[in-house]
Amino acid sequence: MADSDIDAEPGTVYLVGSGPGDPELLTVKAKRLLETADVVLHDKLPGPEIIDQLPEARREDVGKRAGGERTPQSEINERLVELASEGKSVVRLKGGDSFVFGRGGEEAEYLAAHEIPFEVVPAVTSAIAAPAVAGIPVTHRDHASSVSFVTGHEDPTKEESAVDWDALAATGGTIVVLMGVGRLPDYTNALCEAGMAPETPVALIERGTWPGQQVATGTLETIVDVRDEEGISPPAVTVIGDVAGTRESIVDFLQTEYGSAAENGGREA
Amino acid sequence: MADSDIDAEPGTVYLVGSGPGDPELLTVKAKRLLETADVVLHDKLPGPEIIDQLPEARREDVGKRAGGERTPQSEINERLVELASEGKSVVRLKGGDSFVFGRGGEEAEYLAAHEIPFEVVPAVTSAIAAPAVAGIPVTHRDHASSVSFVTGHEDPTKEESAVDWDALAATGGTIVVLMGVGRLPDYTNALCEAGMAPETPVALIERGTWPGQQVATGTLETIVDVRDEEGISPPAVTVIGDVAGTRESIVDFLQTEYGSAAENGGREA
Ligand SMILES: C[S@@+](CC[C@H](N)C(=O)[O-])C[C@H]1O[C@@H](n2cnc3c(N)ncnc32)[C@H](O)[C@@H]1O
Ligand SMILES: C[S@@+](CC[C@H](N)C(=O)[O-])C[C@H]1O[C@@H](n2cnc3c(N)ncnc32)[C@H](O)[C@@H]1O
Repeated sequence: MADSDIDAEPGTVYLVGSGPGDPELLTVKAKRLLETADVVLHDKLPGPEIIDQLPEARREDVGKRAGGERTPQSEINERLVELASEGKSVVRLKGGDSFVFGRGGEEAEYLAAHEIPFEVVPAVTSAIAAPAVAGIPVTHRDHASSVSFVTGHEDPTKEESAVDWDALAATGGTIVVLMGVGRLPDYTNALCEAGMAPETPVALIERGTWPGQQVATGTLETIVDVRDEEGISPPAVTVIGDVAGTRESIVDFLQTEYGSAAENGGREA
Repeated sequence: MADSDIDAEPGTVYLVGSGPGDPELLTVKAKRLLETADVVLHDKLPGPEIIDQLPEARREDVGKRAGGERTPQSEINERLVELASEGKSVVRLKGGDSFVFGRGGEEAEYLAAHEIPFEVVPAVTSAIAAPAVAGIPVTHRDHASSVSFVTGHEDPTKEESAVDWDALAATGGTIVVLMGVGRLPDYTNALCEAGMAPETPVALIERGTWPGQQVATGTLETIVDVRDEEGISPPAVTVIGDVAGTRESIVDFLQTEYGSAAENGGREA
């Protein structure tokens, strides 16, 4: 418990998740580190409400380079080492949790290889939270004994596609796809071909817990049309499985501070 | 954003996750609700540090009944409705996230069926956080394009076992087993029979982020012996997959406030 309740340490990197976007879903620890670190490296995924709270003078947006293209991971890694070597306390802030499709593992390896002390601060992942605030539990005693989080945007440099949709379908559990708006037609197809019922409920949650949250529901068969009609765009998660049907039975009593009451079916407090 | 930053509302139930146990990993919102709700219903899973902070007068332990056996879910459901109907603001506090093997979905359904307004407050799940603080990222660009959370303690009243270990093995992703200390021999066996290499790295993290955190590592073949030698007992998560091997390469620079430095291999701040 040595460093509990103390501020960010000089020469240390904190790999911190921001949660899905609502500043109230930051952990107590993340909030304190954001307030006390010498510098915060971030991109856009933590969302407007959290980013707007960071003082300009102490933050660096490493999402895009001047030209508009994405900053290579190698450059971010080097910047982390550089700042820590100068004796700064550094927060590397990621949307959701740093270790869920957040490249936190690679950053940790790079820091260790360069002998930079670092700490990991786990967070609320959008893969659980975005469905949850829409009234969808990713597991359910009656419906799902497992849940799988998977990328819908496979690294194309890999020789074989590392995602096995047949196996995911066969688990019988909930499937949550991240980075999966664009390739929705491909994997809904693949899952049907793998034997999942076309009537399987599917929900899309865009910008979960952000001011502009949107929720859209359908089935494996209809969800691509729903996506297009409702204009769902990234960042969004796709929830596939019977749990996505739970929303309908509870949404009338689900209080929410996100999105409009009509859109969410919930009464606003 | 209607109810942002205001206190717990009368007649409302808040389904709140506590995170894995470190009070600093509560969300800002969970902390505020715990401070302002009329009553908090909880069991032991949020861990000693969080439970000890709850004022005696405002908390009810619904984990065990007087006789020592577990309180039936139906009784907890009824108590939630009763308290909210009396106009109380009620927090139902769960370890980790309420919607990850937390029966939050069932509670939401019962509340909606009884016309009780409720709100869901997502949290940091132990399935991600316990591995993370031990230096294990559940996904990794080089090692795992998916992660599956699964119960190791299948509901024995179900006709067919709902967990398909063959399918989980075939995903090629990380597998995190909750409630899986006792049946570790069964599912490590099943995964080997399903074709996973016996050398696949496995880690057990007991009481992640609690004062007595313990980490033990091995392979699919050795982990049962390791469990017995190290005396790992519940609550613990089992992480199966190449990512469990990441720990070794980074642990020397991983700062941690949990467990002893020796045990975790990390330097204490
Ligand atoms: C690179 S991944 C990072 C995931 C993140 N580390 C996490 O744990 O949530 C980016 C994807 O996360 C999902 N995502 C992140 N924040 C989201 C939010 N607030 N609502 C919906 N999806 C979100 C989307 O699928 C997006 O394409
Ligand atoms: C009924 S499940 C609840 C899971 C919880 N809702 C969550 O999201 O973490 C109980 C299991 O969670 C896991 N667990 C909960 N807290 C833990 C912790 N601090 N460290 C390790 N495992 C934990 C253990 O596998 C335990 O058997």
